[in-house]
Amino acid sequence: MDLQENNFSSKLLNDAVTEFSKLPGVGKKTALRLVLYLLKQDLKDVKAFGNSIIKLKQEVKKCNVCNNLSDTETCDICANLKRNKEIICIVENIRDVIAIENTQHYFGTYHVLGGIISPLDGIGPNDLSIELLEKRLQNSKVVEVIFALNTTMEGDTTCFYINKRIAKYGVRVSTIARGVAFGNELEYTDEMTLGRSILNRIEYK
Amino acid sequence: MDLQENNFSSKLLNDAVTEFSKLPGVGKKTALRLVLYLLKQDLKDVKAFGNSIIKLKQEVKKCNVCNNLSDTETCDICANLKRNKEIICIVENIRDVIAIENTQHYFGTYHVLGGIISPLDGIGPNDLSIELLEKRLQNSKVVEVIFALNTTMEGDTTCFYINKRIAKYGVRVSTIARGVAFGNELEYTDEMTLGRSILNRIEYK
Repeated sequence: MDLQENNFSSKLLNDAVTEFSKLPGVGKKTALRLVLYLLKQDLKDVKAFGNSIIKLKQEVKKCNVCNNLSDTETCDICANLKRNKEIICIVENIRDVIAIENTQHYFGTYHVLGGIISPLDGIGPNDLSIELLEKRLQNSKVVEVIFALNTTMEGDTTCFYINKRIAKYGVRVSTIARGVAFGNELEYTDEMTLGRSILNRIEYK
Repeated sequence: MDLQENNFSSKLLNDAVTEFSKLPGVGKKTALRLVLYLLKQDLKDVKAFGNSIIKLKQEVKKCNVCNNLSDTETCDICANLKRNKEIICIVENIRDVIAIENTQHYFGTYHVLGGIISPLDGIGPNDLSIELLEKRLQNSKVVEVIFALNTTMEGDTTCFYINKRIAKYGVRVSTIARGVAFGNELEYTDEMTLGRSILNRIEYK
């Protein structure tokens, strides 16, 4: 069925479906399904749903140290005394922070760029939180900066740019290891990854 | 990545993601994607989104004639003078109304049951708007009732029950035609449908 606007008997319903269908990957049919699902819930639950996103938008802040999303001026990670403040892992966005946190293998801090340099999308260095990063390098003792950006043209450009800009602070700069993923077969790994994993081979223990 | 609660640096973000992941077919990862998408929009748009569903829940009514969702006491279809009030098409829910409206082949009115009889789900005849249907049959001139329910065990049971209950009003009762869908191949049509479509064959014009 194709949902034509005039076939909704209710303008309120039509408005809600229109709003939901603005979400990425949600078409008119899915939007209608979601809206009718919510309509079946208690008013209390519908209010909790609608207000949760409004409240988030109104109250969430950017951490004044690392630019991560935070409820407070300084985020939990930056405020955590157990985290090693001398290591900064540079990521594109909060999803990468969550991904790395889930590994439970990293105990340093992060720096969330809020994007990557992408001239095609009109995103330049000034749109990213690079100045804030420089401030951290100036004002606190940092030993190492780790790049954890995607290996796209934009990701590489961003690494290159930031690396040049922070060179004067003399900190060690590294990038996360690329290689054949655990469980992947060599036969089906692309040449770039396989080639790099041979060049960057590590000692067998 | 597995989204563990404690890995969100923001409780507000966690709350919003939790709310979104309650939607049918939306997991934690999709919820995070939708929430971060909305977070990038203007506050005005986020408010429009959140409030649209709250407003719908608070203000939408059931049509006092056909039980369809409506902004007003009587829905647009029932209030439309051009619609034939003597024919009532019985459907399960508003999605079926939209589907039939989209065909642009039906100009009668509807009666939205709000479900079908399903003892397993605890839905009995009293949970459906059958009493309201009887009131219509009593109080206004109705010539025909068309069943447009799904051909499941529950759908058939519901047709059977309503048919018995409205028998005393002496209106013509019909059901929508079942048969081989346009474009479908006979070879791949199930026996039930094909068999019925032979029994209920129509004159070739």
